Amino acid sequence: MRLAELSERSGVPIPTIKYYLREELLPPGRRVSATQAEYDEEHLRRLRLVRALLQLGRVPVATAREVLAAVADESVDQLSRLGTAVAALPPGGPRDTDGDETTAREAERTAEELQRRLGWRVVPENPAHLTLVSALSALLRLGYPCDVSQLLPYGRLAGDLAAHEVALIGEFEAPTTQLEAAVALTVLYEPVLLSLRRLAQAEEASRRFGGE
Amino acid sequence: MRLAELSERSGVPIPTIKYYLREELLPPGRRVSATQAEYDEEHLRRLRLVRALLQLGRVPVATAREVLAAVADESVDQLSRLGTAVAALPPGGPRDTDGDETTAREAERTAEELQRRLGWRVVPENPAHLTLVSALSALLRLGYPCDVSQLLPYGRLAGDLAAHEVALIGEFEAPTTQLEAAVALTVLYEPVLLSLRRLAQAEEASRRFGGE
Repeated sequence: MRLAELSERSGVPIPTIKYYLREELLPPGRRVSATQAEYDEEHLRRLRLVRALLQLGRVPVATAREVLAAVADESVDQLSRLGTAVAALPPGGPRDTDGDETTAREAERTAEELQRRLGWRVVPENPAHLTLVSALSALLRLGYPCDVSQLLPYGRLAGDLAAHEVALIGEFEAPTTQLEAAVALTVLYEPVLLSLRRLAQAEEASRRFGGE
Repeated sequence: MRLAELSERSGVPIPTIKYYLREELLPPGRRVSATQAEYDEEHLRRLRLVRALLQLGRVPVATAREVLAAVADESVDQLSRLGTAVAALPPGGPRDTDGDETTAREAERTAEELQRRLGWRVVPENPAHLTLVSALSALLRLGYPCDVSQLLPYGRLAGDLAAHEVALIGEFEAPTTQLEAAVALTVLYEPVLLSLRRLAQAEEASRRFGGE
């Protein structure tokens, strides 16, 4: 397809597509004349992923390039590609920066014990592990409950969700398509999950305190 | 306690506390001399909440003031105070802005059907409802799966989580303390939930694709 059709089918304006091409977020089309190139379904899929990352995931361009390179790197196995791609995504939340050492150590211990209790391997260099430690350190420092027993239900639910999500990813056929979907769904389902949590809280609070 | 002790116990620097006082995020202390004021446990609690909102929830000062006013408004019932406070918090995710009308309508229908299937009341003016619709519209537009059957597991898990969270809030004694905790935990547990989801995904993916 030509650039105009790629734009129409993706809903992404032509100047934006040209920008993605210049930034090498999108591989070049196949040249058919001095001024025209031909694009295929792979371009369309990749374009959707770029859009999801930049616009909805608020991922910086340089980070998106890193994520996409990991997705496309066929020299390593599927799991490493997935790990590298997802690890490059910005963490799902701000880092707590002004905790003291004692709190940080307690948060680290809590995060590790929680994962062990859930039967998960502890991978301290996983950025999500650092985000978790930071979030726990904030809870501790601000005096809110965050012992392992409070956290276990969150961990169990996250585990159930991940099983559902990884099975969903498994339904995509080609390895690269699977990875693209994994990255997109990691980013795009975050607001779904957070908004459903707030709606469920409202529902639950009105049942419990609403008195109707 | 004096300002110095309030600072030490909260871990918040004195100039920052003075800024919060000027911005009316923190009620003034009880004057004991021309230059000194006395603060109590309520100030400490409130200070922790302000810190959680501004620093970790990235809530703008004006929004934090609105949330805190709702929490403190004893003229209305508990549920309305909670609803107003949580609704004022920034939504848990970016809004999708370039969807077309057809997609927006389909997203709205999906969001409503999902909530009905979960047995929840649909409250279209809840900001979380708008965030959900926006997230679904992005998924639809980018061609990723988001029919009600895909979304139901997320909703059920969010419901389980909310039941756990609302019960947790119920353990705090005074109505105002409950509301403060509800606001703080809504914000502070978002990175906990998102990071646990990513850790669970990594664990699940390595079980499924890792081949060990």
